[in-house]
Amino acid sequence: MESNHHQQSQNDPKTPNTPGPLSADSKRKQLEKERKIGHRRVDEEGQVTYKKFPTTQIMGSIQLGIGHAVGSLASKPERDLLMKDFMEIELVLFNKEGSNTTPAHHYSDFKFKVYAPIAFRYFRDLFGIQPDDYLLSLCNEPLRELSNPGASGSVFYLTHDDNFIIKTVQHKEAEFLLKLLPGYYMNLNQNPRTLLPKFFGQYCYICGGKNIRFAVMNNLLPSFVKMHQKYDLKGSTYKRKANKYERKKESPTFKDLDFLEHHPEGIYLEVETYNALIKTMQRDIRVLESFKIMDYSLLVGIHNLDLSAKEREEHMKNLTIEAATLELSKLNDNSVENKNESNCTKKVSAILNRSKSINKQRIAAYSTALESIQADVDPIDHEEDIPPGGIPARNSKGERLLLYVGIIDILQSYRFRKKLEHTWKSVLYDGDTISVHKPGFYAQRFHDFMSEKVFRKIPSRKLFSSTLTF
Amino acid sequence: MESNHHQQSQNDPKTPNTPGPLSADSKRKQLEKERKIGHRRVDEEGQVTYKKFPTTQIMGSIQLGIGHAVGSLASKPERDLLMKDFMEIELVLFNKEGSNTTPAHHYSDFKFKVYAPIAFRYFRDLFGIQPDDYLLSLCNEPLRELSNPGASGSVFYLTHDDNFIIKTVQHKEAEFLLKLLPGYYMNLNQNPRTLLPKFFGQYCYICGGKNIRFAVMNNLLPSFVKMHQKYDLKGSTYKRKANKYERKKESPTFKDLDFLEHHPEGIYLEVETYNALIKTMQRDIRVLESFKIMDYSLLVGIHNLDLSAKEREEHMKNLTIEAATLELSKLNDNSVENKNESNCTKKVSAILNRSKSINKQRIAAYSTALESIQADVDPIDHEEDIPPGGIPARNSKGERLLLYVGIIDILQSYRFRKKLEHTWKSVLYDGDTISVHKPGFYAQRFHDFMSEKVFRKIPSRKLFSSTLTF
Repeated sequence: MESNHHQQSQNDPKTPNTPGPLSADSKRKQLEKERKIGHRRVDEEGQVTYKKFPTTQIMGSIQLGIGHAVGSLASKPERDLLMKDFMEIELVLFNKEGSNTTPAHHYSDFKFKVYAPIAFRYFRDLFGIQPDDYLLSLCNEPLRELSNPGASGSVFYLTHDDNFIIKTVQHKEAEFLLKLLPGYYMNLNQNPRTLLPKFFGQYCYICGGKNIRFAVMNNLLPSFVKMHQKYDLKGSTYKRKANKYERKKESPTFKDLDFLEHHPEGIYLEVETYNALIKTMQRDIRVLESFKIMDYSLLVGIHNLDLSAKEREEHMKNLTIEAATLELSKLNDNSVENKNESNCTKKVSAILNRSKSINKQRIAAYSTALESIQADVDPIDHEEDIPPGGIPARNSKGERLLLYVGIIDILQSYRFRKKLEHTWKSVLYDGDTISVHKPGFYAQRFHDFMSEKVFRKIPSRKLFSSTLTF
Repeated sequence: MESNHHQQSQNDPKTPNTPGPLSADSKRKQLEKERKIGHRRVDEEGQVTYKKFPTTQIMGSIQLGIGHAVGSLASKPERDLLMKDFMEIELVLFNKEGSNTTPAHHYSDFKFKVYAPIAFRYFRDLFGIQPDDYLLSLCNEPLRELSNPGASGSVFYLTHDDNFIIKTVQHKEAEFLLKLLPGYYMNLNQNPRTLLPKFFGQYCYICGGKNIRFAVMNNLLPSFVKMHQKYDLKGSTYKRKANKYERKKESPTFKDLDFLEHHPEGIYLEVETYNALIKTMQRDIRVLESFKIMDYSLLVGIHNLDLSAKEREEHMKNLTIEAATLELSKLNDNSVENKNESNCTKKVSAILNRSKSINKQRIAAYSTALESIQADVDPIDHEEDIPPGGIPARNSKGERLLLYVGIIDILQSYRFRKKLEHTWKSVLYDGDTISVHKPGFYAQRFHDFMSEKVFRKIPSRKLFSSTLTF
């Protein structure tokens, strides 16, 4: 997966289908599972490692590496992109002691590989990302690891300003991405509006004989927008149900069958929005099909504006009660005043911070869901503190939604053969509903599912006449 | 070479350095040489064959093939270009008897291969070439073979409207062009203004087990503009002198050393024009270098406006004399009247036809020399019947010139190894002045020669103050 499936929600857990309490045994198993997924481990003191390197070391070194890479690009004048630029690799040694061109640091010595630096600069340019902004965003403040790693064991680091995701990729995925670049270039040139993942850089951290490869991408789900529901949709129904471990997460990612259960009527879009979304998707999956890519998903994050308003109301009510309690306690006991006051101050400052983060400018153009589709829809100018960028929609109850969507998991085609063997029985059993099938079939089924089951045109203005204005 | 080096001039021979009369022996040798160059032969009755097929058969079959290819594209809707489009090949069988989709014809049965049809359609689109125009231009009227074939034995067919050149390419050249397409796409996308050859289609005529591959390209030298001088320049001085066979041609193509002899001061351009030309050339040779392409040339056709005016004056004088003679003959002998009159009529109609062809619209955008460079220079609106598109310049005598330039011969990189062996002695002898060297060196030398020796900035407006206005 190329994007942050697994948003770290800072809100209260509130998801449908929350399973009941787990047994002690399954809790232990689940704990173990969380301890080691792929190359990611959590030791007994809670320190996270990846390929046995502490996360802090990886993140710090990566920031040094990217900082150096972007800085040294400044000396290379802008010029036309050439085919050979897709194949170039730069390698820089970062000694602890520093050198003429690299800073001293307190991590282990490491090497840093920069793939296709000129090509990725061109891509960043296409998306209007200034070198300084890229640098500030990625290197100026600590990264934050998303606490819910992908099922593949990839880890995700988020930049402090929410603009970029750094995702570890496997060797084969990294190779595939490099092969993809010329076609990726062609697509971006013809379609800056795309739901495909946006790759802004590809690097490799090399230390102690181990390689950690990663890509810098757009962040699909803004972390300061609460996603009331999240789906990973493939258009298949075979085994496409979130398992119980996923379901018990704070913000689980559901699958196709779950979606059909939660939204049997689908999600409603204005006709123009629907057409723009589907048209963009059609262009995108044609590109994927042309590269024989399959098994990709549509990630859909749903923010429910009406639910959010209710939640905020509830929250304010609680705050008022708390304030009243504070007043009361003041009258009763002066000694607790300070403590309670600081509690209250924290809450207020948290709210302030949240507003601040919402007002942060998105650095990359065409990077929000709404900008990704070829829609003429104006971003909604609603009163709530939700950043523009979500695609306006309705659920069947008529509640106002904002959708955050993107196509993810496009680099895993190489797994096809392996998966086919694994699922051989399921092929025999249910030949045309498994996820893994030939690319044309996969694309068609994906398209049909999204355009018929997931998204629908609002049938008539009358249906939601009372609630249509956002 | 990708373009028509060898313009079939319809004017009187008038070239500098015309050699003296040849000996009987060298005449015979030269005649033999003309009889068979590469795959091209001329039999005793004067019929031209290529790979032993009569030219008429090749041209006719090619027109059927292209007509069918363009026609069948109409059913394929316009869509984004994909990487795989560069690798697609279509094969159609053309039976004498015709079929549901192919017309009956009176040539031998043949097969027709269309390379990357969607990709080339995209390129034609980029240059604003409408399918109907392409079809009309290539298929509606007979092609004309240029009588001076390239030294490589390639043959050139020109469309009746002077818009396109069809050039036979060797197997390896055709393969290389296909490999080049993604990079070619990138360059055109970033630089529609380029001096590189413009490829509009690539095809293969297959008959009797033989393949004739060819490319459709822009015509660099309009055949109705008299080129007073033509040069094939590489920036090398080693053996870069037109041989005696070339020199005795009606419109010879001279080389670097000849240029230095004819134009020791170079050719003068306005500063802006000079900068635009050199900038375009720099971008172009960077692309060539990135593909390790060498041995390309700059083809420079020079039309001398002042010389042309004199020639026309001379011509009109002759016509007047002829008319006077006619009048005289009328008085003397009524019997010759008809013959002379028809002679005169022919001349007038030739002039009329010439004007007609001049007014023909160029189909492809960015295809004239002036459009190829990033110049803001307005095409000169002079009174003479010269089509816009030549780059305005001056020779050292201050005569007004129009330059027709383009980079040619970019597909022959594969010959590098072979050539290196051939010229091994010359490498030892004169390592850094031979044409074949590493691409970076080749590009730099090419650039320096063009920007310093061939083209110069008009040093000051005063120099040509009397003749500056065109």
